[in-house]
Amino acid sequence: MSSTETASPQRSPLHDFLAPDSIAIVGASADPTKRGYKAMVGLVKDGYQGTIYPVNPKAKMILGVKAYPSLADLPASPDLALICTPAAMAPALLTECGKKGIKGAIILASGFRETGLEGAKLEQQLLDAARQGGVRVIGPNTSGMFNLHKKLNLLDLANVKAGDIGFISQSGNMLLSLVLEAEHNGHVGFSTYVGPGNQTDIGFNDYLRYLSEDPNTRVATFYVEGFRDGRRFLNVAREVTATKPVVVYKSGSTEQGRKAASSHTGALAGSYAMTVDVLRQVGVSVVQHSDEILPVAEGLGLLQQARGKRVAVISDGGGQATIASDRLTEAGLELSVLSDATRHRLGEILLPQASLVNPVDVAGSTDVRPSLLAECMEILNEDDNVDSIFLVGMFGGYHIRFAEHLLGDEMRGAESMIELAHKTDKPLVIYSLYAPISPPALRRLHEAGLPVYNSIEHAVRVLAALGERGIYLAASAEHTHLAAVTPDVEVQATFAKALKEGRDLFEYEAKSLLRTHGVAMPAEMVVREADKLTEVAAHFGSQPLVMKVVSKDILHKSDAGGVKLNLRGETALREAYGSIMESCRDYSPDAVIEGMLVTPMARKGTEVIIGVMRDPIFGPVLMFGLGGIFVEILEDVAFRAIPLSRHDACSMVEQIKARKILKGVRGEAAVDKEALVDLLLKISCIVEAYPQLAELDLNPVIAYDDGYAVVDARIIVNRANAS
Amino acid sequence: MSSTETASPQRSPLHDFLAPDSIAIVGASADPTKRGYKAMVGLVKDGYQGTIYPVNPKAKMILGVKAYPSLADLPASPDLALICTPAAMAPALLTECGKKGIKGAIILASGFRETGLEGAKLEQQLLDAARQGGVRVIGPNTSGMFNLHKKLNLLDLANVKAGDIGFISQSGNMLLSLVLEAEHNGHVGFSTYVGPGNQTDIGFNDYLRYLSEDPNTRVATFYVEGFRDGRRFLNVAREVTATKPVVVYKSGSTEQGRKAASSHTGALAGSYAMTVDVLRQVGVSVVQHSDEILPVAEGLGLLQQARGKRVAVISDGGGQATIASDRLTEAGLELSVLSDATRHRLGEILLPQASLVNPVDVAGSTDVRPSLLAECMEILNEDDNVDSIFLVGMFGGYHIRFAEHLLGDEMRGAESMIELAHKTDKPLVIYSLYAPISPPALRRLHEAGLPVYNSIEHAVRVLAALGERGIYLAASAEHTHLAAVTPDVEVQATFAKALKEGRDLFEYEAKSLLRTHGVAMPAEMVVREADKLTEVAAHFGSQPLVMKVVSKDILHKSDAGGVKLNLRGETALREAYGSIMESCRDYSPDAVIEGMLVTPMARKGTEVIIGVMRDPIFGPVLMFGLGGIFVEILEDVAFRAIPLSRHDACSMVEQIKARKILKGVRGEAAVDKEALVDLLLKISCIVEAYPQLAELDLNPVIAYDDGYAVVDARIIVNRANAS
Repeated sequence: MSSTETASPQRSPLHDFLAPDSIAIVGASADPTKRGYKAMVGLVKDGYQGTIYPVNPKAKMILGVKAYPSLADLPASPDLALICTPAAMAPALLTECGKKGIKGAIILASGFRETGLEGAKLEQQLLDAARQGGVRVIGPNTSGMFNLHKKLNLLDLANVKAGDIGFISQSGNMLLSLVLEAEHNGHVGFSTYVGPGNQTDIGFNDYLRYLSEDPNTRVATFYVEGFRDGRRFLNVAREVTATKPVVVYKSGSTEQGRKAASSHTGALAGSYAMTVDVLRQVGVSVVQHSDEILPVAEGLGLLQQARGKRVAVISDGGGQATIASDRLTEAGLELSVLSDATRHRLGEILLPQASLVNPVDVAGSTDVRPSLLAECMEILNEDDNVDSIFLVGMFGGYHIRFAEHLLGDEMRGAESMIELAHKTDKPLVIYSLYAPISPPALRRLHEAGLPVYNSIEHAVRVLAALGERGIYLAASAEHTHLAAVTPDVEVQATFAKALKEGRDLFEYEAKSLLRTHGVAMPAEMVVREADKLTEVAAHFGSQPLVMKVVSKDILHKSDAGGVKLNLRGETALREAYGSIMESCRDYSPDAVIEGMLVTPMARKGTEVIIGVMRDPIFGPVLMFGLGGIFVEILEDVAFRAIPLSRHDACSMVEQIKARKILKGVRGEAAVDKEALVDLLLKISCIVEAYPQLAELDLNPVIAYDDGYAVVDARIIVNRANAS
Repeated sequence: MSSTETASPQRSPLHDFLAPDSIAIVGASADPTKRGYKAMVGLVKDGYQGTIYPVNPKAKMILGVKAYPSLADLPASPDLALICTPAAMAPALLTECGKKGIKGAIILASGFRETGLEGAKLEQQLLDAARQGGVRVIGPNTSGMFNLHKKLNLLDLANVKAGDIGFISQSGNMLLSLVLEAEHNGHVGFSTYVGPGNQTDIGFNDYLRYLSEDPNTRVATFYVEGFRDGRRFLNVAREVTATKPVVVYKSGSTEQGRKAASSHTGALAGSYAMTVDVLRQVGVSVVQHSDEILPVAEGLGLLQQARGKRVAVISDGGGQATIASDRLTEAGLELSVLSDATRHRLGEILLPQASLVNPVDVAGSTDVRPSLLAECMEILNEDDNVDSIFLVGMFGGYHIRFAEHLLGDEMRGAESMIELAHKTDKPLVIYSLYAPISPPALRRLHEAGLPVYNSIEHAVRVLAALGERGIYLAASAEHTHLAAVTPDVEVQATFAKALKEGRDLFEYEAKSLLRTHGVAMPAEMVVREADKLTEVAAHFGSQPLVMKVVSKDILHKSDAGGVKLNLRGETALREAYGSIMESCRDYSPDAVIEGMLVTPMARKGTEVIIGVMRDPIFGPVLMFGLGGIFVEILEDVAFRAIPLSRHDACSMVEQIKARKILKGVRGEAAVDKEALVDLLLKISCIVEAYPQLAELDLNPVIAYDDGYAVVDARIIVNRANAS
């Protein structure tokens, strides 16, 4: 079962106030209609062991606790202040907090950035006051927080069990929903919850750091509408996921959803596909349906990750075995091919009609002795082709369905499964159709830390998450980054010149940059006067050439008639030169034409695209996909945050749906994947070396079975960094 | 709310025994380890009101009921016999049933077709005995059946509530799973269940007919591993779905799943994608996750179908509004654009911070008066842009979350929603995060027939099913089929000749057939000797031509060098003729070459594929998709059973993911959709007219903004019909 240890050098400052020994409730009230009432009630009812300081200028006692007129009047400095007053009072109160030496404050009120310009100003005042006073701020516009291991429940949620799931959610309703789901299934509990609200000061990355260090949290779980600093979240997550699972549900997966999200929080948001890819890149388990958050978090918290994707299914019903197979395959998992030895051993204990091919269907063998299922699981566990074991069917309910006396055998079966779970390094994932009514054997499994799922679909999501986590951890152990690229003096000069001239790099400059840093590029010549064409023709010989106009004023070269293909010999080159000049002058009379770029036509091959953008949320991100309709219509692309490891680059190529085309279809040879991976890594290094580079677009790159050709290259200059 | 009336001319013979007034239990037993015990216990415990005849040669009384030594000894002829004996005895017992005048028998035993050749023989004997005796057979190899409105529960399932969901399942575990789910959520009940087992006699289509006529069933629900006669199921379903919802979960959606399924039932199975498409074509609601079966069946049974796909979302939390928007969009639904009047009216009753753009977020407006949600729903109901209303959030739990006194207002809100549901023709779909704990307002909604879902994802599946059903019903009201095609005498002769010569149609014959039946075809000439090329060249003039070899012995014309493109003028034609002759003779020295097909080169356009196959399960099926990678790599195709209506043909073109390409990308014109639809309909009619046609393949058809060109046509002759 998974470890919860972490070993981080910098301890999160959030410990000072997220597990407080004393708390001030500013605006505490005995009036149930006030916001300051719920927090007081929650603390008093749940038996918070720390000191409570109600702050209210008009009351002596609130719910039996001595109250103080102001923060200044408190006899000591509390660890945390909960501020329940209206928005306008928040900055002044934070100043008071600072004076009193309070480390952290929660601002519940809304009415800040999310409401417009006036609110944004107030939020800035709030942040200034906090920074000045050395107070860290949760919110504003938050539902609050709880730390159940401290019996600190500022939301006054009833029936919420202390447990090991840490949850940070931009939606209060989502918290409520998970709490009710946990109450209903009876076996999941929470450690700390925080609503980050507007994330004015403390952001998702800070909460992640805290949860990673919190010994009561086994899984850090997030409901995110928008990251404010996604790059920092990635950096922290990369560290944390090495030792603790991190689960993220990101809302706004569709254009409609994004609209709904941004009208709600006002947070900027990178595209959904990009967000998912870069989170997975750093080992985060991304959940795509909201009702899978809790099952996946529970499974990752309790179960060992899997070494790989090969699942052995053991079932007592053919129908559910089929469903399990369908869902496993759809989730990208594989059915293990069982060894002959395994099948032989299963055959020895099961009835002749049992199916010994994965999914194993016991076909009635267990009707009189359900504990046989545990024996089968033990056999499957010893098969090297098996990475995880998935029990599907009616375990726990045999004594209900068949005969009461089977209860004893079911309990024995449960004990054997628990024993197996303790000794194996493979996860045992259990689905039972009796899970909704929690019969004794399933309760026993839960008590021993083996979750039992009531949905095949959810169980498969857990198996997928365990497999992905195992594969990620194995790959990240081998992560190799290319040596950093030293910026080249000439390239620096090229950028400086372009910046000065208020243009982006010319195609030949972009290509030259790539060539400088070891990207294989075809020979090219820039012709600035027609006289030089004799020389050019001689240089390239008989191979067909392409000629393209070079002009900062002509962005769409083809539209301007600025591209001529398949040119052979000097005469053709001269004709093309004249023709391009003429068309471009017609197209844009004032355009300054630098000359013509001449290069050999690329052979036919498979067109791919490599793009780089500096995302406002996640920083530099690389995109890879096949060209044409794959990008434009099917949006079949993969993203990774820069820098890429070799594993990242390989996994991008494997991720796209069109990978089959790269592997060769209709008898064509597979493209040279190593060369593509190498190109992706070089681009990653180049982007790191040049902050001057804002965007890069290699479109198309033609991939061959031996290497590639970069046919067009575009580099946009970063004007923001110009100052 | 939906109607359960049906008006079918032929009454199902299954009524005679699926709602029996008397039943014989052959192999009844008081020994709890015997299969004949469970059925007896189930009948006695549940208080079955009909007559029970235990049949057992060794007992006088079983569980207090008088027993008889054999069927022949019964004092009357029971409606149904349950046969619990081993497989080998089944044929003889069916003969006895026949003699006694028993109309229906259930054979529980396995050991038939599913076990191999010997079993298949026994199954044939069983079927022969049944036919001879006039006995209809459920099974063999079945879990049995129940009819809860008759208190007839042959499975002895505890805690299963009578209700309106009829369920036919090839998996006994799936039944158990749904029963436990229903028990757990407390508000779903079942009418009749049957396990069809091997479907030796009675198949899914028969059960569907029965359920459609059963007044206790509002939704006919199926778990199918494999249809035996899919075409008949389609025919019955087309009739039934007009008045009663039909829900199908088909397992085996992946190759792995299909393998698991066929090792279990031995049933043949059409491809999953085809199965889904043809079921939807006849109005079946296809469910793709097993845990959505019950929510979708419940929703379709209780709620009005929607007129369209436009959903108004009303939410009391931004997070869940976003999730709802994401899932709705992914499911192919749309967010209604609310009218100005609607937004104005909402603005009048909600707080200023509420979001009045769909999804409507009340943003705290309902915290003190939850019944405002019902008022918002009433306003949304009056907007013509709204087809269905989706309430998302914490309704039912306000009195738990905020203040106990809100319970009264919540109950008033529930009453208003019930009133609205009764008067509107738009479905109200409700998700509440408090659904797991069933608070009073939600219980009240359930009692009044308004389901409340505990998962946004499931609620969205229900909305999608209601929208699809509404659109289907509207479209099927306008279904127009083309007039039947009369087979042409010459085409008949062509088929006869090909059949006699043991070959398929030549390309020019296939094209001629299409031309005969009104498909727009380019001019073509078959040249049987080189001398004729002068005439051919003169005929076609200067347009570029293509020449293809005509030979029954050369299937892969390009591989044999049998195709030459872009030929202009007589000289080019002569050269091509000689060259093709030479290559083809090299390729296949014995090939009989009939001549050369000459036709103009088709202009560039968008390549599509039309295919027809006679599926062993579903009969003639038409496939449509874009050519090349779209078919081969992305498997982006649509299927419809022949005959197609105009709506079917239109919906095929709209269904494929690549439809964007047909609509014109990168500034290209959209293809002529009407022409394509017309072509699909003509092909459908042609296939109906010629049973001699086994398969047809138009690959490619080039679609233009004005019409299309059929570039290649292949027709495989049906040798099975030759006799």
